[in-house]
Amino acid sequence: MKLLRRYLPILEWGRTYDRNALTNDLVAAVIVTIMLIPQSLAYALLAGLPPEAGIYASIVPILLYAVFGTSRALAVGPVAVVSLLTASAVGQVAAQGTAGYAVAALTLAGLSGGFLMILGVLRLGFLANFLSHPVIAGFITASGLLIATSQLKHIFGIKAGGENLLEMVLSLFEHLGQTNLITLVIGVCATAFLFWVRKGLKPLLRRIGFGPRLADMITKVGPVAAVVVTTALVSTLHLDESGVSIVGAVPQSLPPFTLPDFSLDLVSQLALPAILISIIGFVESISVAETLAAKKRQRINPDQELIGLGAANLGAAFTGGYPVTGGFARSVVNFDAGAETPAAGAFTAVGLAIAAVALTPLVYFLPKATLAATIVVAVLSLVDFSILKKTWTYSRSDFAAVITTILLTLGLGVEIGVASGVVLSVLLHLYKTSRPHVAEVGLVPGTQHFRNVDRHKVDTNAGLLSLRIDESLYFVNARFLEDLIQNRVQEGTRIRNVVLMCSAVNEIDYSALESLEAINRRLKDMGIGLHLSEVKGPVMDKLKTSHFIDDLNGEVFLSQYRAWDQLTRFPYPVSSMDAASL
Amino acid sequence: MKLLRRYLPILEWGRTYDRNALTNDLVAAVIVTIMLIPQSLAYALLAGLPPEAGIYASIVPILLYAVFGTSRALAVGPVAVVSLLTASAVGQVAAQGTAGYAVAALTLAGLSGGFLMILGVLRLGFLANFLSHPVIAGFITASGLLIATSQLKHIFGIKAGGENLLEMVLSLFEHLGQTNLITLVIGVCATAFLFWVRKGLKPLLRRIGFGPRLADMITKVGPVAAVVVTTALVSTLHLDESGVSIVGAVPQSLPPFTLPDFSLDLVSQLALPAILISIIGFVESISVAETLAAKKRQRINPDQELIGLGAANLGAAFTGGYPVTGGFARSVVNFDAGAETPAAGAFTAVGLAIAAVALTPLVYFLPKATLAATIVVAVLSLVDFSILKKTWTYSRSDFAAVITTILLTLGLGVEIGVASGVVLSVLLHLYKTSRPHVAEVGLVPGTQHFRNVDRHKVDTNAGLLSLRIDESLYFVNARFLEDLIQNRVQEGTRIRNVVLMCSAVNEIDYSALESLEAINRRLKDMGIGLHLSEVKGPVMDKLKTSHFIDDLNGEVFLSQYRAWDQLTRFPYPVSSMDAASL
Repeated sequence: MKLLRRYLPILEWGRTYDRNALTNDLVAAVIVTIMLIPQSLAYALLAGLPPEAGIYASIVPILLYAVFGTSRALAVGPVAVVSLLTASAVGQVAAQGTAGYAVAALTLAGLSGGFLMILGVLRLGFLANFLSHPVIAGFITASGLLIATSQLKHIFGIKAGGENLLEMVLSLFEHLGQTNLITLVIGVCATAFLFWVRKGLKPLLRRIGFGPRLADMITKVGPVAAVVVTTALVSTLHLDESGVSIVGAVPQSLPPFTLPDFSLDLVSQLALPAILISIIGFVESISVAETLAAKKRQRINPDQELIGLGAANLGAAFTGGYPVTGGFARSVVNFDAGAETPAAGAFTAVGLAIAAVALTPLVYFLPKATLAATIVVAVLSLVDFSILKKTWTYSRSDFAAVITTILLTLGLGVEIGVASGVVLSVLLHLYKTSRPHVAEVGLVPGTQHFRNVDRHKVDTNAGLLSLRIDESLYFVNARFLEDLIQNRVQEGTRIRNVVLMCSAVNEIDYSALESLEAINRRLKDMGIGLHLSEVKGPVMDKLKTSHFIDDLNGEVFLSQYRAWDQLTRFPYPVSSMDAASL
Repeated sequence: MKLLRRYLPILEWGRTYDRNALTNDLVAAVIVTIMLIPQSLAYALLAGLPPEAGIYASIVPILLYAVFGTSRALAVGPVAVVSLLTASAVGQVAAQGTAGYAVAALTLAGLSGGFLMILGVLRLGFLANFLSHPVIAGFITASGLLIATSQLKHIFGIKAGGENLLEMVLSLFEHLGQTNLITLVIGVCATAFLFWVRKGLKPLLRRIGFGPRLADMITKVGPVAAVVVTTALVSTLHLDESGVSIVGAVPQSLPPFTLPDFSLDLVSQLALPAILISIIGFVESISVAETLAAKKRQRINPDQELIGLGAANLGAAFTGGYPVTGGFARSVVNFDAGAETPAAGAFTAVGLAIAAVALTPLVYFLPKATLAATIVVAVLSLVDFSILKKTWTYSRSDFAAVITTILLTLGLGVEIGVASGVVLSVLLHLYKTSRPHVAEVGLVPGTQHFRNVDRHKVDTNAGLLSLRIDESLYFVNARFLEDLIQNRVQEGTRIRNVVLMCSAVNEIDYSALESLEAINRRLKDMGIGLHLSEVKGPVMDKLKTSHFIDDLNGEVFLSQYRAWDQLTRFPYPVSSMDAASL
């Protein structure tokens, strides 16, 4: 039962569901549904899929997440970055508009769902941590720019392509002569209107007397006005006959049952993109979920979130959708609108199902330029270059990771961009730990505390060299320590004892153990004692399984102060003891 | 002048060179030369090259290393593992026995030399540390097995192939019917004799009255007896006419001037293998050099070693050789025979040059089975499975790296094997640091020292949670800390202050900084103070460049004892102070 409740969070919140929660959830669902209709169509366009795929991807996945997910406010569905990644991955195995393209998108969702499920069951959610904050920030910013640029062709009403920013911009200029002026007017006006809704509408509503919450809600559903007005214009003035691209016929149906193609050939081509989409989607989703949960002192279980998102993606794969995740904008709207439980998501799914059956004929004349405007305005809010300045001030290596991710994402595409960011972060971290900071320490007078001799006024002793090693000892820096001690001992000829203060040594791996053994042998040959102090429990447990402690030409002290106290008062206890046995 | 002396260590030892050193170096050179003649021919055979390539690879490279290298005893030339790597890399771009094969081997040496030079000049020798001790040990053992197996075909006198251990063994069985019995007798006798020389000759010589040093030297040159006897047998009994493979005509010449082929196509195919060969060769060489230097209290400069080995490989590329490095067996012989300076190497080069001009006709009838026996006996001494037991006892993750390296090297080849070992070591390290050990600490009574509450008898305080974080904080574990503190604070409802004891935190990267900011915000909302103690200088310097210290809802204490002292006596100083400003 406990296990069941762990895997089915719905059993937890379902028991206490009441009328009050129902009302709040229903209100939130209505608002989110109105907001999601144009957004779903737009993201499907971005993913290169027929518009209905966006709606379908918002129905069953939301229901499944409501059963398996742990966040009470997360709204799952198509999002901008994942749509872009889908277009990039599926575009490599099939041409847009073909049946193969839609099937590959299903396969991608299926693989992604399966991968998330496996991670969740094996409790491997920590893998997402390999995406550092700077890499994510750089990637999201670069993706936002790429997505906005990719939509300009719809606003100009031209055909253009390109895999990276440069190609896109060049292709736009090349086809600029074919601009459809009516489309451009619709696109530019819609964009301007949507920006104004975002920035200017709420203050205006407040000034004319609306309450803050109502003003907020109206602002969120404002984009629907652009959809309604431009659709009406195209429909009444027959602008489609003047070359304005429209959404066209969308089947009136509930999500169909679909089968992804899991042939070995397709799976091997889509496996890596699926992993990437899963991890990026998970990271985006969990950040939103944790932010919203913290506001209400609720807890998110990352491993269960993997299962929730995995189920949602599997749902998308079998009901005509494509990869989904928890979206930032829709989740915040859901939360602000008062959603209390995942039931709000379920009601949203019902609302979208009604829309899929009843409202699709109404979007026949909806211009693609309006959808493009929706996307442009949504993604430009993701673009934030301030991360460059922040990381530059704090840490050059984090800056290097951000700038690399941004430039490579823009120049070589999303997959190479984010992969390079991850690899570079890891390499920079290893580089930093390969040359650890080692401080010679002395006693802070009047205390039992030891600090760096170069930074603090401390007492030292010429016969005793105390080194604090500021890093775990492992293969990447094992030889470094050998060299360092050799050099320090040759400089200080009066040294009789070396103490390695291990308060910052969190691990000693086998390579480092062999290096310590070599150091011990060499110091012993020179008649110098080697001691350790403040070795942590887990490290000491491991050392005891080797011969190192037995062979040590010195002692292991509980604290650096005890080492200091004993070795300054009795300077050669160990070397004289051992001299007989040499 | 100082710079010149850094890059030309010969200027250092050359100034004090005297008659005594000359005598010792000459004696060592004679012994090493006698030992190297069969070995060079054998390793060329292993690399798939004509026998003279092995001799050429031992002449100019030794001379160049004598000028640029820092080790006084290292003997540079062809070695078993690098020969195997050469055969594997060159075999992928050309067929054995063709002119293209020999040229590709030159190119490989040239690329390797260039790469080593660049690493040396940029002082990037630490990159070699990515090969952990367990990975090297596993790789050397697996390579020894592969090499020994690859030579069995010469001992049986059959043609067999295979890229990995399984293929080799299967191919051997398949061709076993074609065994040449005379070859087999020669091969088995030579192998048995060489094993006996290694194990049984020295005790015998000592028993019949030879001095220990002389007995040792005779043992080292003993293998030449196998060469002389089997060559004489084949030559007088015309066994080559009965199908015994012989070395055949070897040109009588000094090393020729050769040009590697640096066409883009070949370079791109050989670049990765060249990097691998360089790093493995460097690691093998530097281990030998440091071991020997430590015995005489001499110093090795790793970056200058890169330049020395780089020069040696460039020399090999332009004089008909193939990739070389400092060999273990020959360097130890050189050292034991009394070599005092790199001049011993130069004299060895002269000796081999004389051999190349005068002695090559004498090896015409040398059976390849004898050379194969030389290789088998040499490499089986490299095979050492004890590393499996040692790492199993000490650390499961080191064991995983060893076993993976061994199995993949045997099963998929040397390049994949060693690369997988490196990647796995890095991933395991990251995994370990992703879930750091965090100890709740208390005061050891009567001291100012704090230790883990679960391991030591210590004083604690219900209002104060002191956590010692046993890891640097960086992107891989940033979220872990957030979750951990959230959980601990929710468990302990009386907690008023949290102190993060940072004695083991060697770095806080930008991702971790953002996590700390989030922790600070959440604790502040709950009316709990967040404090740091024992923050190291370099970490504090970085934190000061951000707003974190200003925003901190608490203090930074120099020592954990001061934090304890103040926060147990005045439990809510910070939260009450800040309550006004909330």
